[in-house]
Amino acid sequence: MPNILVIHGPNLNMLGKRNQNFYGSRSLEDINNIIERKANEIDFNVDIYQFSSEGDIITKLNEAFNEYDGVIINAGAYTHYSIAIRDAIEILKIPVIEVHLSNIYNRDEFRKKSVISPVCKGQISGFGYVSYLLALEAIKYLLQED
Amino acid sequence: MPNILVIHGPNLNMLGKRNQNFYGSRSLEDINNIIERKANEIDFNVDIYQFSSEGDIITKLNEAFNEYDGVIINAGAYTHYSIAIRDAIEILKIPVIEVHLSNIYNRDEFRKKSVISPVCKGQISGFGYVSYLLALEAIKYLLQED
Amino acid sequence: MPNILVIHGPNLNMLGKRNQNFYGSRSLEDINNIIERKANEIDFNVDIYQFSSEGDIITKLNEAFNEYDGVIINAGAYTHYSIAIRDAIEILKIPVIEVHLSNIYNRDEFRKKSVISPVCKGQISGFGYVSYLLALEAIKYLLQED
Amino acid sequence: MPNILVIHGPNLNMLGKRNQNFYGSRSLEDINNIIERKANEIDFNVDIYQFSSEGDIITKLNEAFNEYDGVIINAGAYTHYSIAIRDAIEILKIPVIEVHLSNIYNRDEFRKKSVISPVCKGQISGFGYVSYLLALEAIKYLLQED
Amino acid sequence: MPNILVIHGPNLNMLGKRNQNFYGSRSLEDINNIIERKANEIDFNVDIYQFSSEGDIITKLNEAFNEYDGVIINAGAYTHYSIAIRDAIEILKIPVIEVHLSNIYNRDEFRKKSVISPVCKGQISGFGYVSYLLALEAIKYLLQED
Amino acid sequence: MPNILVIHGPNLNMLGKRNQNFYGSRSLEDINNIIERKANEIDFNVDIYQFSSEGDIITKLNEAFNEYDGVIINAGAYTHYSIAIRDAIEILKIPVIEVHLSNIYNRDEFRKKSVISPVCKGQISGFGYVSYLLALEAIKYLLQED
Amino acid sequence: MPNILVIHGPNLNMLGKRNQNFYGSRSLEDINNIIERKANEIDFNVDIYQFSSEGDIITKLNEAFNEYDGVIINAGAYTHYSIAIRDAIEILKIPVIEVHLSNIYNRDEFRKKSVISPVCKGQISGFGYVSYLLALEAIKYLLQED
Amino acid sequence: MPNILVIHGPNLNMLGKRNQNFYGSRSLEDINNIIERKANEIDFNVDIYQFSSEGDIITKLNEAFNEYDGVIINAGAYTHYSIAIRDAIEILKIPVIEVHLSNIYNRDEFRKKSVISPVCKGQISGFGYVSYLLALEAIKYLLQED
Amino acid sequence: MPNILVIHGPNLNMLGKRNQNFYGSRSLEDINNIIERKANEIDFNVDIYQFSSEGDIITKLNEAFNEYDGVIINAGAYTHYSIAIRDAIEILKIPVIEVHLSNIYNRDEFRKKSVISPVCKGQISGFGYVSYLLALEAIKYLLQED
Amino acid sequence: MPNILVIHGPNLNMLGKRNQNFYGSRSLEDINNIIERKANEIDFNVDIYQFSSEGDIITKLNEAFNEYDGVIINAGAYTHYSIAIRDAIEILKIPVIEVHLSNIYNRDEFRKKSVISPVCKGQISGFGYVSYLLALEAIKYLLQED
Amino acid sequence: MPNILVIHGPNLNMLGKRNQNFYGSRSLEDINNIIERKANEIDFNVDIYQFSSEGDIITKLNEAFNEYDGVIINAGAYTHYSIAIRDAIEILKIPVIEVHLSNIYNRDEFRKKSVISPVCKGQISGFGYVSYLLALEAIKYLLQED
Amino acid sequence: MPNILVIHGPNLNMLGKRNQNFYGSRSLEDINNIIERKANEIDFNVDIYQFSSEGDIITKLNEAFNEYDGVIINAGAYTHYSIAIRDAIEILKIPVIEVHLSNIYNRDEFRKKSVISPVCKGQISGFGYVSYLLALEAIKYLLQED
Repeated sequence: MPNILVIHGPNLNMLGKRNQNFYGSRSLEDINNIIERKANEIDFNVDIYQFSSEGDIITKLNEAFNEYDGVIINAGAYTHYSIAIRDAIEILKIPVIEVHLSNIYNRDEFRKKSVISPVCKGQISGFGYVSYLLALEAIKYLLQED
Repeated sequence: MPNILVIHGPNLNMLGKRNQNFYGSRSLEDINNIIERKANEIDFNVDIYQFSSEGDIITKLNEAFNEYDGVIINAGAYTHYSIAIRDAIEILKIPVIEVHLSNIYNRDEFRKKSVISPVCKGQISGFGYVSYLLALEAIKYLLQED
Repeated sequence: MPNILVIHGPNLNMLGKRNQNFYGSRSLEDINNIIERKANEIDFNVDIYQFSSEGDIITKLNEAFNEYDGVIINAGAYTHYSIAIRDAIEILKIPVIEVHLSNIYNRDEFRKKSVISPVCKGQISGFGYVSYLLALEAIKYLLQED
Repeated sequence: MPNILVIHGPNLNMLGKRNQNFYGSRSLEDINNIIERKANEIDFNVDIYQFSSEGDIITKLNEAFNEYDGVIINAGAYTHYSIAIRDAIEILKIPVIEVHLSNIYNRDEFRKKSVISPVCKGQISGFGYVSYLLALEAIKYLLQED
Repeated sequence: MPNILVIHGPNLNMLGKRNQNFYGSRSLEDINNIIERKANEIDFNVDIYQFSSEGDIITKLNEAFNEYDGVIINAGAYTHYSIAIRDAIEILKIPVIEVHLSNIYNRDEFRKKSVISPVCKGQISGFGYVSYLLALEAIKYLLQED
Repeated sequence: MPNILVIHGPNLNMLGKRNQNFYGSRSLEDINNIIERKANEIDFNVDIYQFSSEGDIITKLNEAFNEYDGVIINAGAYTHYSIAIRDAIEILKIPVIEVHLSNIYNRDEFRKKSVISPVCKGQISGFGYVSYLLALEAIKYLLQED
Repeated sequence: MPNILVIHGPNLNMLGKRNQNFYGSRSLEDINNIIERKANEIDFNVDIYQFSSEGDIITKLNEAFNEYDGVIINAGAYTHYSIAIRDAIEILKIPVIEVHLSNIYNRDEFRKKSVISPVCKGQISGFGYVSYLLALEAIKYLLQED
Repeated sequence: MPNILVIHGPNLNMLGKRNQNFYGSRSLEDINNIIERKANEIDFNVDIYQFSSEGDIITKLNEAFNEYDGVIINAGAYTHYSIAIRDAIEILKIPVIEVHLSNIYNRDEFRKKSVISPVCKGQISGFGYVSYLLALEAIKYLLQED
Repeated sequence: MPNILVIHGPNLNMLGKRNQNFYGSRSLEDINNIIERKANEIDFNVDIYQFSSEGDIITKLNEAFNEYDGVIINAGAYTHYSIAIRDAIEILKIPVIEVHLSNIYNRDEFRKKSVISPVCKGQISGFGYVSYLLALEAIKYLLQED
Repeated sequence: MPNILVIHGPNLNMLGKRNQNFYGSRSLEDINNIIERKANEIDFNVDIYQFSSEGDIITKLNEAFNEYDGVIINAGAYTHYSIAIRDAIEILKIPVIEVHLSNIYNRDEFRKKSVISPVCKGQISGFGYVSYLLALEAIKYLLQED
Repeated sequence: MPNILVIHGPNLNMLGKRNQNFYGSRSLEDINNIIERKANEIDFNVDIYQFSSEGDIITKLNEAFNEYDGVIINAGAYTHYSIAIRDAIEILKIPVIEVHLSNIYNRDEFRKKSVISPVCKGQISGFGYVSYLLALEAIKYLLQED
Repeated sequence: MPNILVIHGPNLNMLGKRNQNFYGSRSLEDINNIIERKANEIDFNVDIYQFSSEGDIITKLNEAFNEYDGVIINAGAYTHYSIAIRDAIEILKIPVIEVHLSNIYNRDEFRKKSVISPVCKGQISGFGYVSYLLALEAIKYLLQED
């Protein structure tokens, strides 16, 4: 059974409290439950973490080396400037998928740029919590292809 | 049964002949078959078109008004500069999903910018032909939510 | 009786359906009728076309050489990037007037730039369908001056 | 009878002496007479001022609040940098129309940018003194619409 | 008793009429009364001026040399481009405090830049009329420190 | 009694050791004592923290939700690039005031830009430790207004 | 006998009518005759097309795959922005030569940039109709080298 | 005897009080006396003005038309942004010489750009009050050449 | 015996696993051993740390005040954006030397900029692990000079 | 018999040793022989020089005045920044043709800009040594036209 | 008697042949004679050189150390990019005056920037050969001041 | 015994006379002696040159092909713009090390960019003459590794 690491970045723990136009009304706990249910359906194991600290995300990504079959990451605001997270992703040899709840391209100008996109396998953004489910599907397809 | 419009932009008819690192070895016909099979599985009707002309894409999008329940578009190179296609998408009131075969963020600098992203519901890129299948899944989720 | 060519660019056929804050509630047919009525009043003949394709606009402008006494063009989104339309305008020796329904300067940043302005006689923008009527008036003054 | 305020910015008092390619051979007095004649024809009252000082233009615009039904402004060189005039326009609740004698888009690069355009109702440029007459027409249409 | 010069820039005389989201509902007269009351409380003398003209602000700042113990300036739109006011401030040897009613950083892009900030002692912005009162407090602290 | 959270960012623990031209000679402990004394005077409770880690600042801001009546934050160097802290501020519904000891506008070019300003209620900078005291005063005014 | 495809882009059908400083006095027909004569001399077959539509150029380039031994293209104004034509060229495995009648480097700033240059074998510009003849010579050399 | 207009811009009335590294210790009165003495020596008449207001400078330049044989202008901070003064200079048909006391190229970045340079006959900067004397010499040479 | 602090930034713990073209095949442990051996040879004491968190690097640099005679820092990706680390370095009064394993100037554009360079004594980059050894040598020379 | 000057810029003497992907395997001597053979064929005299120094290229171009009927120049790296060579070309009244061995548009970003293109008659690039031969042909055509 | 070094940069030896709109009809020899005559009049010794090579200008400036009382330099095109000449000027402790025949601010955009201005005492441009004479006058004033 | 070429660029011959804050008080002769002594210690032969001319540096680098085992280059101001020197370095197959006496990153903005860095093996800057000694050490390590 494939092992998948899911990482939520800073402020995602505040979901449900934050601007609901962009992020919807579900709490992070709700979303994690939905992710786990979907994982069960497709016979995946998922480990889910939320980190506020850039360093913690890097440490977890470093540990993922040889431990997981895929990573789904919503790096939150770090998406836009953390070259350190970018480097941590680039080192991994498994597919890393970048997801976003909101469509990052119709918001502030500075949110349009993702420094991690160039080193991820692919991006899925704009579908709310569904972005995570599509990412799980994507990994399923990718693992089948190998 | 939901009606979905799938639009392939310029040069996608050359798939299989183009740089296989970025675009894979399948022909457009192969991919269309896979899309149709997937649509069948989830009880969707899909109409698939390939256009080389910006004007033809606009015309088809204009006609989609009140005719479809969702649009999946890979606008090819027009992605990067066709504000006219952007306007045609913005007029529609149904979800439009931007897909790309390749990860447009780890290629030429000018490919990193999509002028249509801000008016699409969401984007899926980097998964080869699977990007289209995930887009179909995404629309299924979106229609269930309504 | 002076012959005037009126060209509407892409997506203007969708008027009435598009964002009514910017474009008003009249359909293109309504506006064309108003233009023709005004033309009658001031003894002008008008030929009105709508094109979604950049190439078709160029072809019509090429054909206008020696056929018309003035051109009124709302190039829609092509305004912002079609250097090919710009070249087609520059070749003509008759007055070409750029019109816009909306005030293109208080919208998206990318709409502030018109690549065709430098080769047009003048611009009129922000008055809804009235922009076209003022353009007709403008040509009347210009032809009187000669 | 509608009251219209017409403001000419700096150096417009030198018309006829300045580069005649861009500005034509008429003096400002000539143009003012033509504007007044046109206003008479369409039953408008016009008050016309020329100011060299940015502060004087702002003061006059401030005084226009509740005193006029429309403003026609050719802010001259202030068009390109006077955010203070922009603010004075934005405060008004009546239509303000930006006019230019010359086509500001086919001259120096720095003349292409108008900082007042985003807060004006519309722009008319490139028709010499006729730009003012078209602006009067435009206000007539706008007042009819209310 | 310290003498403080308070300068209001262009369009601040229109307060109460201008966009109330940004500027509140009080008139400039109301605010001046509040400033004077506060000055009385802390034993300061204040001279308050409003100028629409850049040149008048410069002249007053030039005259302030050796006449005042501190200056509070809300240069309005001149904040963003008047290097001449900047120079007039730089010449003074007393503390000059830049204030703004609105938070100039969450509005138009061009309002984010203040050319006078680098030569002021400090800035206070975003607190409506309270910004002026805090500036008075600030000068009190600064004078105590000497 | 209102509860106020005061956050000092990275390197502020080094005050007194750092360049005294910009930051003054007081240690952070001295300043905290002055802040507390002022808070006592105006009947506020203050909780003061210094964090070197971006993640710790975010966590504390997340916890502040529903716990405080106002926040005073000097984010130090994170001011200039931490979009993650910006997001954490934006989520809060209480006034957050940005303070700086030095005038950030007359130093290095990169210090002129604050990514958190657009989501703060207001900014106070350039008054040394007095900036914090003015921020307390500002919150007092803001709470009175409600 | 090598088969060569020659493509003329938009507005080149207007040669002889357009600004003769840049483009010379010959019509496109004249130039095509000269090209054909030269082709005969060096035992090449040439197929010559003029297209106003970007889509038509792409379609013809797509069809050229396996049909021609070389392409000579003057993409006119599309040179400066058509990434779609660039992609169509990049797919081909035969030499594609970019030609221009005028020296595109001593005209408008925006004409200095060719988006197709990076994927062409080489460029020849500034020699009027002779540019095409040199391109034919160039292909002759290239084919001899293989 | 040639008539020369000398214009000093904003803040030059503060000479001697301002930063003496850049501007020297002489007052404006001292400098004017030196200018007049030099003018006497070379049989020129000079009229010298200092203006703080942009509008006043423009008005004086407008009046200079047909009244003077040459203009020497130190526009102070307006040098860097007053396109309106630029236009007033451009209208004149007599030589206008731009002078600066300080070397504007080794100070703030924004002082390096003069918007009036392109329309002046020549520039002389960096020689303190001597810049004005050299400008008088320059005009003498220019008038001899005619 | 001089005390030297050596700091390795994020992802350097992954050495040997990361792209070996840029970083070589040695593990961080190997490199640390080589550094210690070299330190022994030249009678230096070295304390070596690796941190993934920006805050931890800042804390360690803050603690270094008065504890070390020199610092060697490879800040990894933080090199390119951590102004907070820059500030922490600037506070120290001992030489801080920036090292990089790879030549940061022949890789991604964003890696060319180091925000910490301006506050370091010097930089050594491109020599793999040898960069650290040269840094030790450099400090030896610097300490001899005092 | 027309006299043609051929100038090779810096590092072209290293041909055959330099990156053969871009520059081919022939030495400069080989290429010069081919150029001379071609010149013979078309009855031209060629004088060929290679210079490493910018000043030497300028001197030779200065001497070419009235001595040659055409110049073929591959300015090597000076192409991208030598405004002095540009000026030397601009002074000449004979056709100067810019050639490059490699396609300068698909290499480093900084190689895309030629400061000499705007003053040359035309450019030929990307054909290896054949670029020179085409330039000879081009001059032949140009001389025939006169 | 003061010793003055006059340096003419590249292409100035071509004066009289070059574009006479900008540079006048006199040859360099003529101008040198006029400079020498003027020097005689004011009891200066002048040594005049023309160099095409950047290195030669640097060498001459290096040699000027302790040999001259002032330098007048027209660096020609090197003005715009030779940081090496800038450094050579900066080392000298005598006044260096930058002169230009033409007004470099109303020509090509790239000619507006002088990299040597920040290290020269002052600039004089736009007066043709008279620029040199004014520079001699300027040095006379500067030496008197000491 | 390895042969090492050391190249000093323009103005380095003036060391000791130039700004001693950046460059120290030693003359170039002093530094060359120290370099030679160090080379002796580690059994290297060094040939040391100083050139003011860009062309001479290129020529020497061209000659170094197959003659040396390593190059140490301080290109002085040419560092910032000489693409021609960059090309000359790129051709060599031996390690080339870029050194600078001063820390080029805490000086003028334009000194932060080195056009030769991307083609050098590594850079050492900021250590005064010690930079050269470290470069010798670096080459020793590099040669040992082979």
